[in-house]
Amino acid sequence: MPVVQKNLQLNEFPRGFHIITSRVEEAIPEIREVVTGLLHVFIQHTSASLSINENADPDVRRDMESFYNQNIPENSPYFIHTLEGPDDMPAHIKSSILGSSVTIPVKNGRLALGTWQGIYLGEHRDRGRPRKLILTLWF
Amino acid sequence: MPVVQKNLQLNEFPRGFHIITSRVEEAIPEIREVVTGLLHVFIQHTSASLSINENADPDVRRDMESFYNQNIPENSPYFIHTLEGPDDMPAHIKSSILGSSVTIPVKNGRLALGTWQGIYLGEHRDRGRPRKLILTLWF
Amino acid sequence: MPVVQKNLQLNEFPRGFHIITSRVEEAIPEIREVVTGLLHVFIQHTSASLSINENADPDVRRDMESFYNQNIPENSPYFIHTLEGPDDMPAHIKSSILGSSVTIPVKNGRLALGTWQGIYLGEHRDRGRPRKLILTLWF
Repeated sequence: MPVVQKNLQLNEFPRGFHIITSRVEEAIPEIREVVTGLLHVFIQHTSASLSINENADPDVRRDMESFYNQNIPENSPYFIHTLEGPDDMPAHIKSSILGSSVTIPVKNGRLALGTWQGIYLGEHRDRGRPRKLILTLWF
Repeated sequence: MPVVQKNLQLNEFPRGFHIITSRVEEAIPEIREVVTGLLHVFIQHTSASLSINENADPDVRRDMESFYNQNIPENSPYFIHTLEGPDDMPAHIKSSILGSSVTIPVKNGRLALGTWQGIYLGEHRDRGRPRKLILTLWF
Repeated sequence: MPVVQKNLQLNEFPRGFHIITSRVEEAIPEIREVVTGLLHVFIQHTSASLSINENADPDVRRDMESFYNQNIPENSPYFIHTLEGPDDMPAHIKSSILGSSVTIPVKNGRLALGTWQGIYLGEHRDRGRPRKLILTLWF
């Protein structure tokens, strides 16, 4: 049955956006054998996110972090879920906007990303924590 | 051919976010037989959404509803699509931000969600309506 | 192996949201032969997006463009990635919110979209450019 599934645990990242494309590729080398398929990357957490964006200029990741912080401020007066800290509820909202998974075509042994695309892990808590991902490849 | 597809119709929910994980699992019990696979959950509407978020404290769902209402206000002066009511255009925008589907790994007969993850249905109209979902499982 | 993959290149669209459902269907006519399956549509760019929304009233697409422009303004004072023009960083943010792919069930030879659903291409640069999509169908 042509479905391969792997676990990938990533160590704590600081708050912000981080490119994890090569970490994902290394964790599921079976990609290299696939002519035509898909890869699903899933994060098992609700205060971090997965998305696809620009892989070259680190300023893009910095501006993205600024934008999301600016627009989903901590200590909004109407938040009632505040017990786990002021960064918790904004983290859940960011995860709902950015998403918990990405699906990427696989072609001739490689992820068929565009030239400027990379996989972003968004760490939305002040104190990053280890994050568990599940990688599923089918072909 | 290892693809199973089911329809799931949900009765009217009130406006807001609702956890539907067990409704989904019950509608496609074939999950229990799957060792390694994926489940895709799709909503056939443009004023409701599917996402994954915190499954424990109902305050998270309440704060999320507050955040989206606050930031996508009704009666924005630049809206021109207003014929179907002030809640209609904001509902379309919320659906574009949150998404129309979620894809979740399946492992050893269960959805491989994180401990704190659940499937959210976002009902974005004032008067909820029955919502049609399509569940597709492959393995 | 029941996976079919096609490339689809779309000519420049003007900035805004555009319905591309029939363009996608024409590019992968194999859909017609599929009883039960899924279609993944992926865009290989980080300043354009794919989403699903209302397919009837063009005002919805116009209001959506207004909303995203209003809420992700150009020339935000905290942006530092500005070399590629004031529309570039907002385009990356829009793409992160709306997403780089959609996955749609296929049923009895057709995309199982709801009555009012269509596939949106969001062109977020002032000067649109040709956009490369990868379509993957499995069943």
